[in-house]
Amino acid sequence: MNYRIIAYFIGRILRLEAVFMAPALAISLYQGEHAAAAGFLIAMGALLLVGVPWSWKRPENRSFGAREGFVTVGLVWVVVSLFGALPFFFGGGIPSYVDAVFETVSGFTTTGASILTEVESMAMGLLYWRSFTHWLGGMGVLVFLLAIVPMTRGSGASLHLLRAESPGPQVGKLVPKMHQTAKILYGIYVALTLLQIVLLLAGGMPLFDAVTTAFGTAGTGGFAVKNDSMAGYSFYLQTVVTVFMAVFGINFNIFYLLLIREFAKAFFNEELRVYLGIMLGSIALVTVNISHLYPSVREALHHAAFQVSSIMTTTGFATADFNLWPEFSRSLLVLLMVLGACAGSTGGGIKTARLIILFKSVRNEVWKMLHPRSVKLARMDGSILDEGTLYGVNAYMAVYCIIVAVSALLVSFDNFSFETNVTAVFACLNNIGPGLGLVGPMGNYSAFSDFSKLVLTANMLIGRLEIFPILALLMPTTWRRG
Amino acid sequence: MNYRIIAYFIGRILRLEAVFMAPALAISLYQGEHAAAAGFLIAMGALLLVGVPWSWKRPENRSFGAREGFVTVGLVWVVVSLFGALPFFFGGGIPSYVDAVFETVSGFTTTGASILTEVESMAMGLLYWRSFTHWLGGMGVLVFLLAIVPMTRGSGASLHLLRAESPGPQVGKLVPKMHQTAKILYGIYVALTLLQIVLLLAGGMPLFDAVTTAFGTAGTGGFAVKNDSMAGYSFYLQTVVTVFMAVFGINFNIFYLLLIREFAKAFFNEELRVYLGIMLGSIALVTVNISHLYPSVREALHHAAFQVSSIMTTTGFATADFNLWPEFSRSLLVLLMVLGACAGSTGGGIKTARLIILFKSVRNEVWKMLHPRSVKLARMDGSILDEGTLYGVNAYMAVYCIIVAVSALLVSFDNFSFETNVTAVFACLNNIGPGLGLVGPMGNYSAFSDFSKLVLTANMLIGRLEIFPILALLMPTTWRRG
Repeated sequence: MNYRIIAYFIGRILRLEAVFMAPALAISLYQGEHAAAAGFLIAMGALLLVGVPWSWKRPENRSFGAREGFVTVGLVWVVVSLFGALPFFFGGGIPSYVDAVFETVSGFTTTGASILTEVESMAMGLLYWRSFTHWLGGMGVLVFLLAIVPMTRGSGASLHLLRAESPGPQVGKLVPKMHQTAKILYGIYVALTLLQIVLLLAGGMPLFDAVTTAFGTAGTGGFAVKNDSMAGYSFYLQTVVTVFMAVFGINFNIFYLLLIREFAKAFFNEELRVYLGIMLGSIALVTVNISHLYPSVREALHHAAFQVSSIMTTTGFATADFNLWPEFSRSLLVLLMVLGACAGSTGGGIKTARLIILFKSVRNEVWKMLHPRSVKLARMDGSILDEGTLYGVNAYMAVYCIIVAVSALLVSFDNFSFETNVTAVFACLNNIGPGLGLVGPMGNYSAFSDFSKLVLTANMLIGRLEIFPILALLMPTTWRRG
Repeated sequence: MNYRIIAYFIGRILRLEAVFMAPALAISLYQGEHAAAAGFLIAMGALLLVGVPWSWKRPENRSFGAREGFVTVGLVWVVVSLFGALPFFFGGGIPSYVDAVFETVSGFTTTGASILTEVESMAMGLLYWRSFTHWLGGMGVLVFLLAIVPMTRGSGASLHLLRAESPGPQVGKLVPKMHQTAKILYGIYVALTLLQIVLLLAGGMPLFDAVTTAFGTAGTGGFAVKNDSMAGYSFYLQTVVTVFMAVFGINFNIFYLLLIREFAKAFFNEELRVYLGIMLGSIALVTVNISHLYPSVREALHHAAFQVSSIMTTTGFATADFNLWPEFSRSLLVLLMVLGACAGSTGGGIKTARLIILFKSVRNEVWKMLHPRSVKLARMDGSILDEGTLYGVNAYMAVYCIIVAVSALLVSFDNFSFETNVTAVFACLNNIGPGLGLVGPMGNYSAFSDFSKLVLTANMLIGRLEIFPILALLMPTTWRRG
């Protein structure tokens, strides 16, 4: 393993993280939040102290394989979170470091699960940083680095890093050069975020709220700057958020196709149609199921659309406490939690593409059992799904189940209800935020023990990086020489 | 598809079912239970009315492939349950036919979930039939037919039927002739059942209780003839049941190996060691977790061992209400529910063998991601696991998850708690019986709506037949000509 180049990447990322803290520091200074400003300064100092020497010189040996890719991504996310928690800890926002790490990992992984019982008293600089971690984590820290620094020419590093950091069963290049792909992705991302900010400002939302809400929406994160999440905003603002949550749950390849005017290809994309179909169907079912709770069907539809969009895209904003809804709606939302958004979006969960592949692989398996001597190929968007992809998706599901089982068992030591334990694991592993019971949309994660918080923190990282980079860190074979 | 031969098999099975009802009828006549006796006579009449003409003549065309195997097994189980419910319905035991079918499917699939709020007032003939369905369903209805009727020589029917009806990812023949294999399996099964009856009688259990308890243990079913399940029996009797539940959860191949004195092969079997390891480990963990609830550690150990053995083998007998235990023990039991017993045993669940294959396939997948250009083969008991088996197990897990998700959603219309819904689905799909909440070991399934009962009935069948035979019945391609 090429440790030098891994250290180099980590160093570059840490330097970048220090730069990213600058706007938050500026806000704290402007608002006269001295403790928070000090927290940012300490964190930036620590980042540079480690980051600068590690990335001082480009390593000569640029060999970089799949193994280096997974390890780099896994380590970068852990390290970035450990440093990113420092402003909360030293800035007076969160007195426990375990809590601060939980909150930061929740931010970067775009989970949006919080240990804070209330957020409005927090320094604005810290709130800004908290929301910004969503935005950065959504598209990926390393993808950002690749977009601005075309440094790994010829080594294959870009490909392996993008593959390991981006969600979805098949990570494609938009254009032959990965560097360009990363740039296009971030370009679309910035443009959509800006558009949402403008639309929110147009509805009368204060600038600070608009920017942080857009960060939370774009990254499908869910941290809000109000204690009641989105419940206090106007009907118009909530509708803007509903639509943009759904938009950020779409595979970014679709936006690229629209950009290069391949409209037919975009609209006939199989995953997109299934994704929108499930979303609209769920909204209809929930609307019917909750209509008796609201004065009008229109209002029921409004809240159903918001919550379904929020949960299915794994954002986690709320306008209503779905914890109090009938059991059918609650169960449907739990299913949507697990399903998640499209591959190649900023959303979490298993991803619609995997569901489609799963169904096709099952159909194939039954076909094979009934007709042992004939061959049938599964296709998606016209092209054949190779055995490797089918098998990979099935293996992914298997590990996923094992992780859910073990995590729920570990969290159960806290002796909260079965519902709370299981949905807390789902909400963290799928990077959603709110679950049911104690961790419902109007609840939070503060009641868990430090041990459970660490388990859930690990779940968030495992979910965001889609299991394998974190699994690779834990496998002895990764660290063997050769 | 060869419909004639399928009808022939169904006819033979129905005739057999009429014969199997005779002892229950005799008990009812002896006890003077007139209503129950009438119920049995009506059922036996109906069975012969359909069964005799359908199996009057052996079909000329004996071609029998995998497709016929799945369809026959799927249909036989549905038909046998529909007829098997008649004595309960006409015999005054269960006034609703949906409930009677639920109870009968629960019996044949060795689930042991009951809609009865109390059982002690039921006619003894009906109680005997209820427990006997466990015994018959455990080893398989068609396997029984194969053991007594060597009629399908040269057609391959035996192999396809045994494969489709027996649980486990790889169904092996013990000896070259399937007919002999079926005979050996039932021979071991009868011998172990008799041994248990003798040991129970030796502990002072009444004959009727001993026979029905042994039926419930052997089939890993869980229907008891007392309202408090096994709680009222002596320490010795409970211990006998604990041990025999564990024994019937072991792959029957192991007993065959012992029979032919292949001791080393038996004891070094990978699945057996993992199965016993998980069981003993779980007993230890639960004992520690519940020790404060009992006057002595010995008593805690006794109840922990009984409940772990009961749940892991998917039997479902109870000596204690684990619904009231701490959350960790409850969660651990839910995990054991899903895991289940060994492949090739009478127990349900995903099976230990699949868990082992799953872990190995995941290890392989991670290895492949880290070393894309090297090859590594997964092995079990020394022999290589081919891609087909690995892939099949992963696909199995995927369908399993989809079924759990959809079923839990459908059951949620009844608006019971998340815990009740999810564990009811687990308890039925894995053929266990008791879950948590409303369906805990001292609860029952009577509160569910008819719709939910039908969903759970389907789950029991899907679980017992390991998904594919039932799935095959529902696939349009099965019924296409050719």
